[in-house]
Amino acid sequence: MYRDNNQSARLPAPDRVPTLEEAPMTYCVALKLQQGLVFLADTRTNAGVDNVSRVKKLFTWEIPGERAICMMTAGNLGITQAVISELNEALDRPAPGEATLYSAESMFDVAQIVGDTMRRVQQRYSAGLAARGVDAGASIIVGGQRAGGPPRLFLVYAAGNFIEAMDDSPYFQIGEHKYGKPIIDRVISKETDMQDAIICALLSMDSTIRSNLSVGMPLDLAVIRTDEMQFNQIRRIEADDEAFRKFSERWSQELRDAFGVMRLMQV
Amino acid sequence: MYRDNNQSARLPAPDRVPTLEEAPMTYCVALKLQQGLVFLADTRTNAGVDNVSRVKKLFTWEIPGERAICMMTAGNLGITQAVISELNEALDRPAPGEATLYSAESMFDVAQIVGDTMRRVQQRYSAGLAARGVDAGASIIVGGQRAGGPPRLFLVYAAGNFIEAMDDSPYFQIGEHKYGKPIIDRVISKETDMQDAIICALLSMDSTIRSNLSVGMPLDLAVIRTDEMQFNQIRRIEADDEAFRKFSERWSQELRDAFGVMRLMQV
Repeated sequence: MYRDNNQSARLPAPDRVPTLEEAPMTYCVALKLQQGLVFLADTRTNAGVDNVSRVKKLFTWEIPGERAICMMTAGNLGITQAVISELNEALDRPAPGEATLYSAESMFDVAQIVGDTMRRVQQRYSAGLAARGVDAGASIIVGGQRAGGPPRLFLVYAAGNFIEAMDDSPYFQIGEHKYGKPIIDRVISKETDMQDAIICALLSMDSTIRSNLSVGMPLDLAVIRTDEMQFNQIRRIEADDEAFRKFSERWSQELRDAFGVMRLMQV
Repeated sequence: MYRDNNQSARLPAPDRVPTLEEAPMTYCVALKLQQGLVFLADTRTNAGVDNVSRVKKLFTWEIPGERAICMMTAGNLGITQAVISELNEALDRPAPGEATLYSAESMFDVAQIVGDTMRRVQQRYSAGLAARGVDAGASIIVGGQRAGGPPRLFLVYAAGNFIEAMDDSPYFQIGEHKYGKPIIDRVISKETDMQDAIICALLSMDSTIRSNLSVGMPLDLAVIRTDEMQFNQIRRIEADDEAFRKFSERWSQELRDAFGVMRLMQV
């Protein structure tokens, strides 16, 4: 009567450990609103619970008034750092005839450059990583605005292909996305006010940090307002940030209060 | 400087699809409070988006005043249904000298019986499933109370081994647990009032249903109050349940209101 819902699931190799996609240890979220773009990333990395460290996952490029670009990375750190390094190297020593982040004519071209760089880096390392049984999985959120075009937001996969955030679902999350998704689904639409979107991203991050040890402070926040073509904010929120602590506590209080209403309901 | 956080992750076989643990399609939660036990399960099952069905995942056994036992299942449906069927068969035709759910002298013995049955079922089918590339993964939450002992709650794994819910973390979730975890982490402790715990479980389920298509109505709810040794509630909440619809809408409204406070904060 019921087809078994696992008959389509294949067996894992017995000694396999989860890939990064299955056991993520990063949380980045980007929102695309009519008023602009919001980027928020944590900074925790680890190679096991005995080797926890901090690493920047949010990167920005800017020609004020002309273009502002932000990227956030998740997955194999060797891979994503190689991609970011290559993109930066190309700015200093551009190959003849090849566009860079600063010369690309559109945000679509920027996404293409990031995707092409990802492909090159994967081609260089993935066979060696595979031989050592290491997952080369990686993904990059890239967004921004260039003079003459609208703000755009893309998600670049390990294969170098990418998708764009559209109005129906105007956000991307990479890494440990589940804990922080419900608040975004409830609050964000393309019409959401920029300040509200920043608050929502921070609440989404707060829920994730609270539920998952592999995501942690400090946080990196970047904001691009539509048609400013420069960063409105680039901010690091440290672990001891007093305003963020109060914010987090207030949210706990508000949720408890909301729960206090719900507990009186008949259901 | 940073060890790559993926160097420990092994490569999946190229044609591997996720196991149930990685791509769950069930949500069950059980809470163990001083006042008793709460069990809540969804009923959705699917073998792909073109084959969505309904299946009961919550099962109860009761000798009123003497014992009340509840189980919830996740994972390979063939495996979990075989376990439940064997447990029921043993009630009708008990093997000489072997305890059943109705004759077990403690909840620990009940968990042991479930674990042993799981082991037998796995031994019978897992080689055949593996040969067909199918994951035999399954887990069962089992809890209840028998006269003379306290209420207890266990999580039985596919290998038949099990763990018990203790005061520090008095709940178990199986299946798609992440969306519904933040509210539980914020609300539940062993002192939580029973009615509050039921509300919290329903909110946790509501968030999960809203974020994940593979978890769906109707819901099965069972409640055992401490020292009653019988079910205080066994209830199915249908998809068109008016009270649950209002409850879900009210929670959305409360969250929006809470967000309305947060958006005014400086952070």
